[in-house]
Amino acid sequence: MTAQTTTELLDSQVQDNAQRLMPSDARTRGIAEELYASVADSPIISPHGHVSAELFRLDVPFEDPTELLVTSDHYVTRLLHANGVDYEDLHPSDGSPAGKRAWHLLASHWHEFAGTASGYWLDQTFREVFGIEEELTEESADRIYSAIDSQLRGPAFRPRALFDSFGVEVLATTNDPLDDLDDHAVLRDDATFTGRVLPTFRPDAYLDPSDPSFVERIDQLHQRTGRKDTFAGYLLALEDRRAHFLQHGAVSADHGVGELRIRDLGAERAAELYTRARRGQLTAAESSAFQGHMLLEMGRMSARDGLVMTIHPGVRRNHSSATFQRYGSDTGHDIPFATHFTDEIRPLLEEVGLTPGMHIVLFAVDETVYSREIAPLAGFYPSVFIGAPWWFLDAPDAGLRFREAVTETAGFYRHSGFIDDTRAFLSIPTRHDMARRLDAAFLARLVVEGRVRPTSAKRIIKDLVETLPRKVFKL
Amino acid sequence: MTAQTTTELLDSQVQDNAQRLMPSDARTRGIAEELYASVADSPIISPHGHVSAELFRLDVPFEDPTELLVTSDHYVTRLLHANGVDYEDLHPSDGSPAGKRAWHLLASHWHEFAGTASGYWLDQTFREVFGIEEELTEESADRIYSAIDSQLRGPAFRPRALFDSFGVEVLATTNDPLDDLDDHAVLRDDATFTGRVLPTFRPDAYLDPSDPSFVERIDQLHQRTGRKDTFAGYLLALEDRRAHFLQHGAVSADHGVGELRIRDLGAERAAELYTRARRGQLTAAESSAFQGHMLLEMGRMSARDGLVMTIHPGVRRNHSSATFQRYGSDTGHDIPFATHFTDEIRPLLEEVGLTPGMHIVLFAVDETVYSREIAPLAGFYPSVFIGAPWWFLDAPDAGLRFREAVTETAGFYRHSGFIDDTRAFLSIPTRHDMARRLDAAFLARLVVEGRVRPTSAKRIIKDLVETLPRKVFKL
Amino acid sequence: MTAQTTTELLDSQVQDNAQRLMPSDARTRGIAEELYASVADSPIISPHGHVSAELFRLDVPFEDPTELLVTSDHYVTRLLHANGVDYEDLHPSDGSPAGKRAWHLLASHWHEFAGTASGYWLDQTFREVFGIEEELTEESADRIYSAIDSQLRGPAFRPRALFDSFGVEVLATTNDPLDDLDDHAVLRDDATFTGRVLPTFRPDAYLDPSDPSFVERIDQLHQRTGRKDTFAGYLLALEDRRAHFLQHGAVSADHGVGELRIRDLGAERAAELYTRARRGQLTAAESSAFQGHMLLEMGRMSARDGLVMTIHPGVRRNHSSATFQRYGSDTGHDIPFATHFTDEIRPLLEEVGLTPGMHIVLFAVDETVYSREIAPLAGFYPSVFIGAPWWFLDAPDAGLRFREAVTETAGFYRHSGFIDDTRAFLSIPTRHDMARRLDAAFLARLVVEGRVRPTSAKRIIKDLVETLPRKVFKL
Repeated sequence: MTAQTTTELLDSQVQDNAQRLMPSDARTRGIAEELYASVADSPIISPHGHVSAELFRLDVPFEDPTELLVTSDHYVTRLLHANGVDYEDLHPSDGSPAGKRAWHLLASHWHEFAGTASGYWLDQTFREVFGIEEELTEESADRIYSAIDSQLRGPAFRPRALFDSFGVEVLATTNDPLDDLDDHAVLRDDATFTGRVLPTFRPDAYLDPSDPSFVERIDQLHQRTGRKDTFAGYLLALEDRRAHFLQHGAVSADHGVGELRIRDLGAERAAELYTRARRGQLTAAESSAFQGHMLLEMGRMSARDGLVMTIHPGVRRNHSSATFQRYGSDTGHDIPFATHFTDEIRPLLEEVGLTPGMHIVLFAVDETVYSREIAPLAGFYPSVFIGAPWWFLDAPDAGLRFREAVTETAGFYRHSGFIDDTRAFLSIPTRHDMARRLDAAFLARLVVEGRVRPTSAKRIIKDLVETLPRKVFKL
Repeated sequence: MTAQTTTELLDSQVQDNAQRLMPSDARTRGIAEELYASVADSPIISPHGHVSAELFRLDVPFEDPTELLVTSDHYVTRLLHANGVDYEDLHPSDGSPAGKRAWHLLASHWHEFAGTASGYWLDQTFREVFGIEEELTEESADRIYSAIDSQLRGPAFRPRALFDSFGVEVLATTNDPLDDLDDHAVLRDDATFTGRVLPTFRPDAYLDPSDPSFVERIDQLHQRTGRKDTFAGYLLALEDRRAHFLQHGAVSADHGVGELRIRDLGAERAAELYTRARRGQLTAAESSAFQGHMLLEMGRMSARDGLVMTIHPGVRRNHSSATFQRYGSDTGHDIPFATHFTDEIRPLLEEVGLTPGMHIVLFAVDETVYSREIAPLAGFYPSVFIGAPWWFLDAPDAGLRFREAVTETAGFYRHSGFIDDTRAFLSIPTRHDMARRLDAAFLARLVVEGRVRPTSAKRIIKDLVETLPRKVFKL
Repeated sequence: MTAQTTTELLDSQVQDNAQRLMPSDARTRGIAEELYASVADSPIISPHGHVSAELFRLDVPFEDPTELLVTSDHYVTRLLHANGVDYEDLHPSDGSPAGKRAWHLLASHWHEFAGTASGYWLDQTFREVFGIEEELTEESADRIYSAIDSQLRGPAFRPRALFDSFGVEVLATTNDPLDDLDDHAVLRDDATFTGRVLPTFRPDAYLDPSDPSFVERIDQLHQRTGRKDTFAGYLLALEDRRAHFLQHGAVSADHGVGELRIRDLGAERAAELYTRARRGQLTAAESSAFQGHMLLEMGRMSARDGLVMTIHPGVRRNHSSATFQRYGSDTGHDIPFATHFTDEIRPLLEEVGLTPGMHIVLFAVDETVYSREIAPLAGFYPSVFIGAPWWFLDAPDAGLRFREAVTETAGFYRHSGFIDDTRAFLSIPTRHDMARRLDAAFLARLVVEGRVRPTSAKRIIKDLVETLPRKVFKL
């Protein structure tokens, strides 16, 4: 058999892109396709992510294909870097656009994205958003670049138009506590924009004394709120800003930490550490303790003001100091490590775990906690919900492993619904579509195995896509 | 396509309940069905569980469907609680039966059990024990309640009759060391009851000085045995009670611990800690050390008296203090955490790991130890056997993951056989049936992949169901 | 249905050995078979293993089937031991060969190897190397022994002939730093032997002061190299030996450690510990710190001399002291434990992680690190490559789990290629064949799911088998 013939045979067997991620087994696939069809056109509810509100306020056309799809996405740039591409070629130090040269780098490294989540998002974005079926190669690179570039100049590809054509109903941004949220206010008051763009309160840098900007940030916090520079004033200032977010439609507060280590230090000890933190005098252990205490305080505030608490622990940020110093954070070298919830989150749950209306969504990049800790916690505490597989785990196989790990203990109804957590706006429909396909495939298997009745499967997939995110995020 | 039509299509594709848990692929399913058929009617050997001997001694009809199937099963009540049901409605504080109202709560929350192990047990119990195919809904709740209730009043549903019709050959209970075991003696001497009901020695609370009842329990232990209140006397007293259990047919001693931390303190230091433990004077670290030493002493006793040692580590009990204070233990908030065997069990294996006749069965709720630690340990030490997937992992997908994790290192013959570990007597046949189906499905795949010969697969599944539990538990 | 009939039915459904490990689903299998066929006859590149160069220098016939296939393979003997075989029967203390008696022990325990990796290697070695399809039983044991024994006496089964007929292109051995490597030199200069047999620098015992032979080994190291007995001299001596290995074709240095704990102690502190280590005066913690520092020094040397650094952490060696004392190391009781890379390897990557030409291959026996740590590290650092699933994980199901765990984050091109890591020379073709089949099956599924294009799949499997090991190991 010649190589040519083999490839033809292989090609004849591949399924249509419309059937992507569907199970191969015919009986299971039939059920999965019906389940998927029932939610394929459901609105997109995106209660946690990193697209900016400014994008929709300005509503100007996107820059160029490279900036839009390559250099702004550190999932893509990190894999290029791993495969030998110099960041200088993606982020030129003279500030010039990486442009077509970087696009050709992507093309020449495209085979290295095969099988990855990033490769899947990009491939589907090419196909579904831009209608490009041709594979990206060095030969096709210019053609594809031009095809995307010319579409980006048209009115259908401006941010608001895409927001509508993607069927986005709600999109949450992630914001600094001192953000004035004017972009959100403008969008809310703009009668021509019917989507909901909500802010999310993300106070990490204001809670962690080991953050180099901590002292300055707290200065600004007090300045903005007019609260006293005491621990009590600091808590009130944070409450003020949460109230500001709530007034602008926020439904959740997001907490990204390294080690999860929630502790109740008591008001006196916390106040003492606060005073010394303001002078930059805490040891690493004290900083960690203070941050752990502040997560508890955030829980207390959520129990009062109703902001859903989302917790994203277990990532060592900026692993490569040299890269961080030259290119800053979010440049691809945040590396997960083993995470522990059972003991570490207990002080929080002891205090607010049974409080009516309290919602806590737990995310993990350490898969081992899904069956061992998160599902059992969410399988008892009414306040605890299981976050969608996050970051490195937001991918087809990892997504199925997630469902297999949590469902037998917690069922489907302790889940937050899918969360895209992305700054790549164009990948949002493909990400939600992937989640729907995976859930359809997973449910179809359970139907075939006699573990879920067909009528239940139909209800469940609809609830996963629409009911649960609305309920869990109080939308 | 209307919703109605879709559901009909889905319904037409679902397999018969008789084929539940069988693989969808036709070739694999054919082999799995043949393997399953060869053990479907094998007797049930249940060497570890939580049904009481009193149930069979009294042999009175079960109370009512709610008490039998809902409120007595903390796997069921915890998921209701997570989904917003107040424990007060399941365990009324005035002591009144939860009754039909709680049954309706189950019905209205039934969709939240889809895909869970508990949902599967209940669904199969309805179908296989009570012949009810109809799905539990708020509309069908009364009908199903009545159907079960009327059957429970008949002679075929009294405990001994079910013991026989389920095909139970051996059933082990779990007992306090001071239990007189009279119920077991009565059953043994009752010519009309042919099953074997064996006690299991469970000394946890007598080995852990941090248990609030420790001092009082040891008082009673010495009082009952007449041994001196010294460390040596304490060891002798425990040996006395083990002898009492052995006389009543016990084959194993069960050890449930939080952190597994076996240590040899030496007799002198252990005696010193014992003296202070009797006065309630140990620190948390000393309590843990003493308990770790006592596990080693239990191993020494097992090496002498032959009781199989089963070890169940890695669960933080009573995670929610408020729930514990109001409803007690075993109320759904025991949460697993990361477990380590390799170093922690070494002192025990150094001493008795190569002792002829010594049997140690290791259970885990942390799946990561299956391929990493338990299979390698059982793949060398003749004394170490791999316990069935336990608690949160006793479910279809987790069961297959378990087989995939341990078999390539340890094969099938280092396994303890299935253990139901349940207090839900009516779910016992369904649980064992599930294990047989999963093993059939797993073996069928290995046959199809050319990794196990068909004749071997037939032998293996028979050995898993009958030979291994008899051998490992010395039945 | 009688047992006989059932077995016949089962037998009729099993696939041909040529289709072993292929997926059952017809569409996926078709693609997998085409992919596999494209690399089935590719040369074997084995850049890390434990076969000796002396075997090929001497090129004398293998001893006997028992020594060749049973007693020299501690994967096989450990499982016999677990199932009750006395090591005395496998390694007689009078030094006599274990012979036919041990072969019969294997036969009578053969069913206990069903489903294991070792069982698969042996079964395939019987079939593919010796042409024996018959199953090993007590009845067939003598026949199979004789069939193998008579073949071993023929010229086609001498080591060099097998090297050729197996299609081995490169085979790396593992060597003590003081090995003169004469065997390698002889093979290199022998015009009648065309294969490449390369040494690997394995300095573990020279870096770990807690090793009982440390002081004596360092004595010999200095004696051999003539370097001064100072920390600086010690580093130079190690560099001398690395140079010697490089001159003899070595491409990598291998580092097997228990806990991975790389630390930069600074030259002064390291020198101080060295001085005391030479007198055997280090505490356990100091030994560990020194070893951690020396791994960093090895990294620095690799950055200079180009030897690929392979790291194999996370195994507690010689778990059973009694067995170790009687039978030595590598006797089946090395047990893995939880491993952590993210923080522990950071000092090394901070220093050489971005150095051009630096190659570090990370291996794990703790599967949890694949998706959590190793893939993210290899998905950013150009120097980090993902090692093949190792030891207990070098097996069909574990191999697929590995691909599923790493690919979505790191793709296929951050992988080292397959590594057999074996001392069982006859199993080498079967091991590489297994890896090719698993990769074909995995890629076929991605093709069917629309995640990898057929043309890409063809390129990827070829690169996995040939391009990547050559590139990663600088062959």
